[in-house]
Amino acid sequence: MKEIRAIIRPNRLSRLREALRAIPNFPGVTVFNVKGFTAPSSVDRRSLRDELTDFTDKVMVCVLAEGDMVETIRAAMIEACQTGQIGDGLVWVVDIQSMHRVRDGSAY
Amino acid sequence: MKEIRAIIRPNRLSRLREALRAIPNFPGVTVFNVKGFTAPSSVDRRSLRDELTDFTDKVMVCVLAEGDMVETIRAAMIEACQTGQIGDGLVWVVDIQSMHRVRDGSAY
Amino acid sequence: MKEIRAIIRPNRLSRLREALRAIPNFPGVTVFNVKGFTAPSSVDRRSLRDELTDFTDKVMVCVLAEGDMVETIRAAMIEACQTGQIGDGLVWVVDIQSMHRVRDGSAY
Repeated sequence: MKEIRAIIRPNRLSRLREALRAIPNFPGVTVFNVKGFTAPSSVDRRSLRDELTDFTDKVMVCVLAEGDMVETIRAAMIEACQTGQIGDGLVWVVDIQSMHRVRDGSAY
Repeated sequence: MKEIRAIIRPNRLSRLREALRAIPNFPGVTVFNVKGFTAPSSVDRRSLRDELTDFTDKVMVCVLAEGDMVETIRAAMIEACQTGQIGDGLVWVVDIQSMHRVRDGSAY
Repeated sequence: MKEIRAIIRPNRLSRLREALRAIPNFPGVTVFNVKGFTAPSSVDRRSLRDELTDFTDKVMVCVLAEGDMVETIRAAMIEACQTGQIGDGLVWVVDIQSMHRVRDGSAY
């Protein structure tokens, strides 16, 4: 099993939801409201805008899926959340050692 | 070291806390208020209830523990959070490459 | 690529931000407002203070970075967030299997 995570623009969450729900056997998503900040684009001159945008609202999503679904889910995330501008976010994959259902204790 | 994560029903957090605190040398938990959504159970007919439950409040918990405590913690999580119904959540384990205490910079 | 995570005191976030932004090519941080709880320090006698501090506000930060930046980022986190007291938090590192930019779908 894999954990696929993405940081995205909050206003793309609704579009992402539709894209993910259209995937056969889609396993579900967990959504985190987070904030992000990056290095200042201009180190010498800090504008008011830089200060105000130090912390930007972002959404993190997390999907647990089998390895053969990773490519499908990543492609759907990128398509649904892409504007082509800086700040679109990242998608990354972490390997899961084990996973169990709480409902019946069964392992995946 | 391992990172044990679980998505659970929010109303089971209090019970989970008691179960974890009863474990000798229990290392502590981090709690995230999150939302989740899954695939629509009925693809053809979407009811008002389906729409209203698109995003469900969930709690994610994260425990950092040594490998030999994983089984104990997972069993406690499953027992404390199990109702037997769909929506009870998942427990999964991720391998940690390194871990340090902020207090003194020491490695685990 | 690595995912570097830390649980820190909320009042150290601003100091941490400055420390991370001072690192050349710093890649950005995601910030989560979370709560934490640990085992009761005194098992026999629970005071009102113990009850009140069952859930403590914490901040979790997550940085995605190349392996050769891990040591620099970890050292900056520990220095910026260290008070020397219990409750300073933890820094840990998880290996990332793959990472893509949403903006253009390119892999890191």
